[in-house]
Amino acid sequence: MPIIRVEMFEGRDRETKQTLVKSLTSEMARITGCSEGSVHVVVTDVSKEDWGIGGELAVTKFPD
Amino acid sequence: MPIIRVEMFEGRDRETKQTLVKSLTSEMARITGCSEGSVHVVVTDVSKEDWGIGGELAVTKFPD
Amino acid sequence: MPIIRVEMFEGRDRETKQTLVKSLTSEMARITGCSEGSVHVVVTDVSKEDWGIGGELAVTKFPD
Amino acid sequence: MPIIRVEMFEGRDRETKQTLVKSLTSEMARITGCSEGSVHVVVTDVSKEDWGIGGELAVTKFPD
Amino acid sequence: MPIIRVEMFEGRDRETKQTLVKSLTSEMARITGCSEGSVHVVVTDVSKEDWGIGGELAVTKFPD
Amino acid sequence: MPIIRVEMFEGRDRETKQTLVKSLTSEMARITGCSEGSVHVVVTDVSKEDWGIGGELAVTKFPD
Repeated sequence: MPIIRVEMFEGRDRETKQTLVKSLTSEMARITGCSEGSVHVVVTDVSKEDWGIGGELAVTKFPD
Repeated sequence: MPIIRVEMFEGRDRETKQTLVKSLTSEMARITGCSEGSVHVVVTDVSKEDWGIGGELAVTKFPD
Repeated sequence: MPIIRVEMFEGRDRETKQTLVKSLTSEMARITGCSEGSVHVVVTDVSKEDWGIGGELAVTKFPD
Repeated sequence: MPIIRVEMFEGRDRETKQTLVKSLTSEMARITGCSEGSVHVVVTDVSKEDWGIGGELAVTKFPD
Repeated sequence: MPIIRVEMFEGRDRETKQTLVKSLTSEMARITGCSEGSVHVVVTDVSKEDWGIGGELAVTKFPD
Repeated sequence: MPIIRVEMFEGRDRETKQTLVKSLTSEMARITGCSEGSVHVVVTDVSKEDWGIGGELAVTKFPD
């Protein structure tokens, strides 16, 4: 039943997301004792124009 | 004042969302006694590439 | 797979929450075509000291 | 360490978001005593087709 | 209609929250042009036992 | 900069949360290439009275 949400900068491909989902799910099950089948992971890609750190947009602070 | 959030797979059209918003709002008001006018519903469409269930992306687990 | 979140003022009892969860779930399934079994509803009780509307805390704006 | 999330109708440009992030961050630091550098602000643009108020989608209730 | 969420370490009193809500609301309205009356702010107090930074719980990393 | 949120049934102790935070952080860094120091994890304990699955509260569906 656990729900894990991940907010990160956009740009990761599907394979990376699949790897991430698999790993977070298995660690969650291993550590908390829940079943892997019950874990949801929802990934949200956030644009660097929409994320401010220390008052500055990431698009300015961390240009590609 | 209640805020309802719905995360679901992307692909529902505007008419379905309107029906959903109307129904969730009226049920919320009927059951909790708040006014319908005070209910916010925010819908988030989630890509099947961004939703993992049981460690597997929904795009693989539930292909269209 | 849909996830519904409800934020509302604290104070509703378990029976009201059960009624709410049942209704939102069945409406979600009826309107979007998902199975009832796949719907998660997470309710968050928010204190009136933690909710501001129009710049004023609800505890002041809407005293009991 | 504080995290501020802003959900608002889509359509604000980068300059407005930069101004908003800067202001919310500095107010947060001034009022709570945290450092500005530790404040995260994540902005989510919501389509008027995905936001219901009083049971009606904003796209209908507040057309442009 | 904007919704602002603030997650921060628990421990701020009601007066600080009132000041924060008032300030974030008025800045939001000033910068985006929305009405103050339409702004919701929801504050979530997070225990230092529930917040990890760099892999370490804040209760250990930032003891009082 | 990534933010990970975990919602799970209440009842895990501090040691379990510390283990979970450490593991999710290091997996996040390993897979996405971000630095461990930039990862935030926020854990939310949810009462079984506040979580509905398939229309039924978890407190009824999964009694302790």
